Amino acid sequence: MKALTLKAPGGLNNILVSDIADPGEPGPGEIRVGIGASSLNFHDLLVANGSIPTEDGRILMSDGGGTVEAIGEGVTEFKVGDSVVSCFFPQWPAGSADASVGTFANTPGDGINGMAAQFVVRHQNAFTLAPKGWTHAESATITTAGLTAWRALVVDGKVKPGDTILTLGTGGVSIAVIQIANMLGAKVIITSSSDEKLERAKKLGASEGVNYRTYAQWSDKVLELTDGKGADHVIELGGPGTLEQSIHAVRVGGHISLIGVLTGRSGEVPTALLMAKQARLQGLVVGSRRNQQDYVAALEANQIHPLIDKTFAMEELAAAFEHQTSGSHFGKICVEW
Amino acid sequence: MKALTLKAPGGLNNILVSDIADPGEPGPGEIRVGIGASSLNFHDLLVANGSIPTEDGRILMSDGGGTVEAIGEGVTEFKVGDSVVSCFFPQWPAGSADASVGTFANTPGDGINGMAAQFVVRHQNAFTLAPKGWTHAESATITTAGLTAWRALVVDGKVKPGDTILTLGTGGVSIAVIQIANMLGAKVIITSSSDEKLERAKKLGASEGVNYRTYAQWSDKVLELTDGKGADHVIELGGPGTLEQSIHAVRVGGHISLIGVLTGRSGEVPTALLMAKQARLQGLVVGSRRNQQDYVAALEANQIHPLIDKTFAMEELAAAFEHQTSGSHFGKICVEW
Amino acid sequence: MKALTLKAPGGLNNILVSDIADPGEPGPGEIRVGIGASSLNFHDLLVANGSIPTEDGRILMSDGGGTVEAIGEGVTEFKVGDSVVSCFFPQWPAGSADASVGTFANTPGDGINGMAAQFVVRHQNAFTLAPKGWTHAESATITTAGLTAWRALVVDGKVKPGDTILTLGTGGVSIAVIQIANMLGAKVIITSSSDEKLERAKKLGASEGVNYRTYAQWSDKVLELTDGKGADHVIELGGPGTLEQSIHAVRVGGHISLIGVLTGRSGEVPTALLMAKQARLQGLVVGSRRNQQDYVAALEANQIHPLIDKTFAMEELAAAFEHQTSGSHFGKICVEW
Amino acid sequence: MKALTLKAPGGLNNILVSDIADPGEPGPGEIRVGIGASSLNFHDLLVANGSIPTEDGRILMSDGGGTVEAIGEGVTEFKVGDSVVSCFFPQWPAGSADASVGTFANTPGDGINGMAAQFVVRHQNAFTLAPKGWTHAESATITTAGLTAWRALVVDGKVKPGDTILTLGTGGVSIAVIQIANMLGAKVIITSSSDEKLERAKKLGASEGVNYRTYAQWSDKVLELTDGKGADHVIELGGPGTLEQSIHAVRVGGHISLIGVLTGRSGEVPTALLMAKQARLQGLVVGSRRNQQDYVAALEANQIHPLIDKTFAMEELAAAFEHQTSGSHFGKICVEW
Repeated sequence: MKALTLKAPGGLNNILVSDIADPGEPGPGEIRVGIGASSLNFHDLLVANGSIPTEDGRILMSDGGGTVEAIGEGVTEFKVGDSVVSCFFPQWPAGSADASVGTFANTPGDGINGMAAQFVVRHQNAFTLAPKGWTHAESATITTAGLTAWRALVVDGKVKPGDTILTLGTGGVSIAVIQIANMLGAKVIITSSSDEKLERAKKLGASEGVNYRTYAQWSDKVLELTDGKGADHVIELGGPGTLEQSIHAVRVGGHISLIGVLTGRSGEVPTALLMAKQARLQGLVVGSRRNQQDYVAALEANQIHPLIDKTFAMEELAAAFEHQTSGSHFGKICVEW
Repeated sequence: MKALTLKAPGGLNNILVSDIADPGEPGPGEIRVGIGASSLNFHDLLVANGSIPTEDGRILMSDGGGTVEAIGEGVTEFKVGDSVVSCFFPQWPAGSADASVGTFANTPGDGINGMAAQFVVRHQNAFTLAPKGWTHAESATITTAGLTAWRALVVDGKVKPGDTILTLGTGGVSIAVIQIANMLGAKVIITSSSDEKLERAKKLGASEGVNYRTYAQWSDKVLELTDGKGADHVIELGGPGTLEQSIHAVRVGGHISLIGVLTGRSGEVPTALLMAKQARLQGLVVGSRRNQQDYVAALEANQIHPLIDKTFAMEELAAAFEHQTSGSHFGKICVEW
Repeated sequence: MKALTLKAPGGLNNILVSDIADPGEPGPGEIRVGIGASSLNFHDLLVANGSIPTEDGRILMSDGGGTVEAIGEGVTEFKVGDSVVSCFFPQWPAGSADASVGTFANTPGDGINGMAAQFVVRHQNAFTLAPKGWTHAESATITTAGLTAWRALVVDGKVKPGDTILTLGTGGVSIAVIQIANMLGAKVIITSSSDEKLERAKKLGASEGVNYRTYAQWSDKVLELTDGKGADHVIELGGPGTLEQSIHAVRVGGHISLIGVLTGRSGEVPTALLMAKQARLQGLVVGSRRNQQDYVAALEANQIHPLIDKTFAMEELAAAFEHQTSGSHFGKICVEW
Repeated sequence: MKALTLKAPGGLNNILVSDIADPGEPGPGEIRVGIGASSLNFHDLLVANGSIPTEDGRILMSDGGGTVEAIGEGVTEFKVGDSVVSCFFPQWPAGSADASVGTFANTPGDGINGMAAQFVVRHQNAFTLAPKGWTHAESATITTAGLTAWRALVVDGKVKPGDTILTLGTGGVSIAVIQIANMLGAKVIITSSSDEKLERAKKLGASEGVNYRTYAQWSDKVLELTDGKGADHVIELGGPGTLEQSIHAVRVGGHISLIGVLTGRSGEVPTALLMAKQARLQGLVVGSRRNQQDYVAALEANQIHPLIDKTFAMEELAAAFEHQTSGSHFGKICVEW
C-alpha cells in the first residue's frame, strides 16, 4: 500500500510516497481503517521539516479520517462501514492530563506511525466515530485543530453564553473557535493582518475583527471593544510574541488558553500583570478521547462543518505544507487519497 | 487616637505616629473595632516605602485583628466583644474574581485608610470573625498571607490528600502553606537559602527541604524527590526570577499559583514548556470574604496557630519593616498596640 | 402611589389595589425605580393564595422590571434612566448557596414587600441592569423563571453543545430552557399534555416533544429518543409525581435539576436507581445576583426575547393568577402598570 | 487451584470451595496475580445470597489484594513482586461516570469472575499498585469500601478543611470516611445504635457520635451540633429509610452522597425540602481507576491503615458473610488464603 513517509533527517523534500507492507487484519480489540484524508497542523509541519526529530521512515500526519474496513475480536464501539476519525493521544481515554500525555511518544505522525497511509490497523481506542455525513477530509480536521479549540473553550474555558472570546489569527484552530463560540452563544473578537480575512471571519460569525497591522497595540482595541473590561477568554495561538498583549487584553479573573508556539518557545511575560488580573494561563495540547466524542456529538447536533481552505492529493503533501507555510490560507488545509 | 500614617511620598522614614480624630460611633451596617494588632506583608512594604503611591496621610496596613466595640443598626453578624479580622477586599463577598477586585482602590492601607489605628469604623463586610482563642496578632496574619495560601491550595488548587506541593521560601505565605497542607494530608517540598530554616520548616511539617544555594537548579531536585513526575502544585512566590524553574518542577497537568513579585514584574518564561506540560499558571491576589470565613473555620477545626517570627510595638512599624527587608525572618512579623 | 397588596390570610380575592405612601428619595447606596411590570410564578401564586403565609398588607410579586428614577449617594452601578430588573435574593451577591438563602425572608413579595408597586426604593444590590431594548414586562421574566432556567443549565448543569436536555411542561421555566439550550447548542426534549403546545415548543427550538397523555411512560420514549442512553440533563419541574420517571430518563452520570413542587412536597423516589445511575439530583432556588448579570449578558449577546403568553394590567393581578392556574398558558404571564 | 464459587441460584450454603483450572500465563497487557486476600461488602453479600443473580459457578468477591507473579508483553505499570489491589470497574480509567459503568457487567465477583481465587490473570487495568507496606487484607479494603468513601468526600464532595461530615453507621465505608476526613482536616459526626461503637469511632477521630436509638430524630441532634446550620456533607449509607433525616440534617447548599441500599430500593423523600435547601443528592458507585491511584497515594502519604474487624480464612467465606449480616462488626471484614 502507499504511505507518505519521512526520510531522516526530515525536510519537505524528504517526504516520500512509499510503497509499504499492508497492515493486514485487525487483532483482538483492533480495527482496520481505510484512510480517506488527513489535515495539516503546525505540529505535523514541525515533524515534516525536521524541527521535531523522528525516526527514519516515519509515516506522517496525526489527523486521519476514514472508513472501518474490518474489526477484530471484542470490538464493540465500531462496525464495518463506520466513518471514523483518529485520536491525537490514543492512550488518553478521559479525565485530566497526566504524565502519560506529557510527550508525543504515542502520537501518530510523531512518536508512532501516522495516518498518511492507505490503511491502518489500530486499537479501537485510537479512533472515535466521525460526525454523520462528513467527508473524511472534514473529519480529519477534528483530531488536532478542532479538538484543541473545543478543549480550550468548553473543557478548560467553560465558556458561557454572552462571554467574549479573543482569538488570534485565522488558522484552523481560530476558525474552529468561531464555530464553537457560535454554538455556545459567545462573542468572538478575531485578529489578522488582513482586512479581507477579517471580513471572512465576520461572515463566519465573529463579532469583531482587529487588524494587528492597523493596530500594533491591538490589545487596546480589544479593551475598547469590551468597554474597558477585557475578553473573558483568550485563545493564545501566537506564543511569546503575542502573550504580553493577550494578558493586557484579558479581563480580571479571565482565562487564557496557551496553545501557540508560532513565535518561539520562550519570551518576556508580564507576570505581575497576570497576577494582578488574577487570570489563568492554561497550557494545553489537544485533548482526551472522551473530549473528542463530546465534540463530535456537538458538531452533529449543531450541523456545523469545518472550513477547508484547500484540499491536495495525499501525494502532494509537500506542496500542501508549502501552502501552509505561505500563511495565505484561511481555515484548514487537507490532503486526501 | 493614635494611628500610623504615611507622609507623601512615602519611605520608611515617613511613617509617622499621628494623633488623628476618633472615627466615632458606627452607622447602619457598620461596626467599631478596637484594633489590637496588624501584620506585615510585601504589599504593605511597597506602600510604605513609596513603591505603590498613595495619598498623603494614608493610615497604613491591610491586616487588622481586634475586638468589636460597638455595632450599628442592622448588624447581624457580630456582637460587641467578638474578635474579628479585617478583609483585604471588603467589596468581594464571594465567587470568582472580577473587575471590582482588579485594583487596590478599596484595600485598607492602600486605596483607603488601613488598620494601623487604635480604632476603625467600617461596614460589617470589612471584617470576619477571627478563630476562637487567637491573639489579635495571630488573627491579623489571616487577612493577606494566610488567605493567600488558603486560596492557592484550597480554592484554586483543589489540593487532595497525597498531593505534593512545592513552595518557595520561608516567608509568611510559605509557612501558612505548610500548615494548610498538613491539614489537607498533602506533602510539602520547600526551598530556602538556609539549611537552618529548612530544618525549622520540616519540624513544622514540610516533607523535604531544598537549599537553592546548594542546588542552583533546584527544580531538578524537586523532580528527583517526586520520582521524576514533578510537583502537583507550585506556590510561586518568587516571580519571574523563579518561574522558569517552577514550570520545570511542576508535573504534567499541574497547577502553579502565581503570587510573587519579589524578583520583578516581568521576565523570561518558557511558554512552550508550560504548554507541553498542560500546566496552569493562575494569578491570584488574596481572596473573597467567604474564602476567609472558610479559612477561619478550618483553622478552628484543626487548632492550628500561625507562626509569628517577631512582634513589634505598633509605634515601631518602621523597624518592623526593616526586619522584614532583612529577610532573616521565618513566618510572620506583627505589630501591636 | 398604587400597589397590589395582600390582605391576610391571603387568597386571590384578598388581593387589593391599595394607595400607599410613596417610598421617597433613595438613601446612600439606594436607587428609586419606577416599576413598569412584573411577571407571575408559582411562588407568587403560593403567596397570593395564602399557601405561603405572609404579613397583612404585603406588597406582592418577586419580579420587577422598571426604570431608575433617582440614585442615592455612592451608587455606582446605575444611572437615572437605566432599565433594570429586580433580584429574587437581594442578599446573594455571588458564589454558591449558603444559609442566607435558605429562606424567603429577604425575597420581595414574600418576606419583604414586593414589586407590585408604582415605585420602590431599594439598595442597588436588589437590581441588575436589564437587557438593552427589552420591555419592562420582558425584563420582569428574568428574576425568577429565567434565572432558574439559566442556573439549572449553565451554573449547575454545565451543559455542553451536543448535550440533550429533557424539560417538563411548557411553563415559563421550560420555555426559557429551550431558549438557553438553543444558545448553548444543546438539544431539548420537552413534554406536554398538548400536541399543539409541543408543536409550538418545536417551533421555538425544541428537538422533540413527548405527549405524556399519549405516552404515560414518557421516560421510555425519552430513552428511545436518546438511543437508550437517556438525557444528559433533566429539568425536573414536576416534583415527586414526575421524579421517578425523570430518574428513569436520565443517563448514567447525568444531572437532574430539582425545581418543581407542582405535584407535592414529598413522594416515593427510586433511590437505588438514582445511585446505580450515579446521577445527581440538585435542588435549586433561582440564583445569585452575579448569575443574573451573566444571564442578562447572554440574552443581549444572543438577541433573544422571552415568550410572553399574555400581559394583564397590574390592577388585574387576580385575573392573571386565575389564568396561570388554568394551565392553558404557554410561556410567561405578565402584569404591567 | 482453589476458588470460592457460587452454585446457582446462590445462598450462603451454595458457596463452594472449588478446584478449578489455573489461569496460566499472562498474555499481552496482562498480569498474573497471586491473590492473598479479599474483603466483604454489601454488594458481595447480595451476589452471594442470590439477591443479585449471577451465573452458575461464578468466582465470588470484587475486592482482591495480592502480588504480581508474572507480567505479559507490553505491561509497563507493574513488575513481578509488586503488591496490587483490584479495581471494581476495570473498564473505567478516569473521568466522570458514563454508560460503561451503568451496570456490574464487568465487575469482578458479579458480571465476571471475582477475586476469591488463588490466582487471577487480568489486563493490567484491572489492578493498581497497593500502598507500600500494607498487608493484602488491608489492600483489599480499598477496592470497594475505601474507594467509595474517597470518591464521596474528595472527588464528588470536594470537602475542605473545617467542613463537617455526617456519616451513618460504623461499617467499612463509614470508618474509611473518618480516616479520610482526618486527612482532610474535616470534622465527622457519626451515628450508631451502640454507644460503645460511638466511643470507638471517636477514638479513631470522629468529633461527635449520635446514638440513633437514644435520638430517634437524630437529624435534630446533628443540627444542634452544627449550631443549627447542618452538616456540609452527608454520607448517606442507609437508603430510603434514613434519607429523609439526612436531608433534614444537611446544610443549605450542602452535599449528600447517596450510597446505601441497606433499607430498600425506593422510599418517601421530602423533595421540596431538598429543593429549598438547594442541596445536591449525588448517586455514586465506587469510582475510577485513577481515583483509586489517587487514594492509594493519599493513604501512603498519610500512613493510614484501614481498620479490620476480623479476618477469616478464605474457605470460611460463608461464615464471614454471616458475621457481616450479624451487624456486630466495626470496620472491615476480610478473608485470606
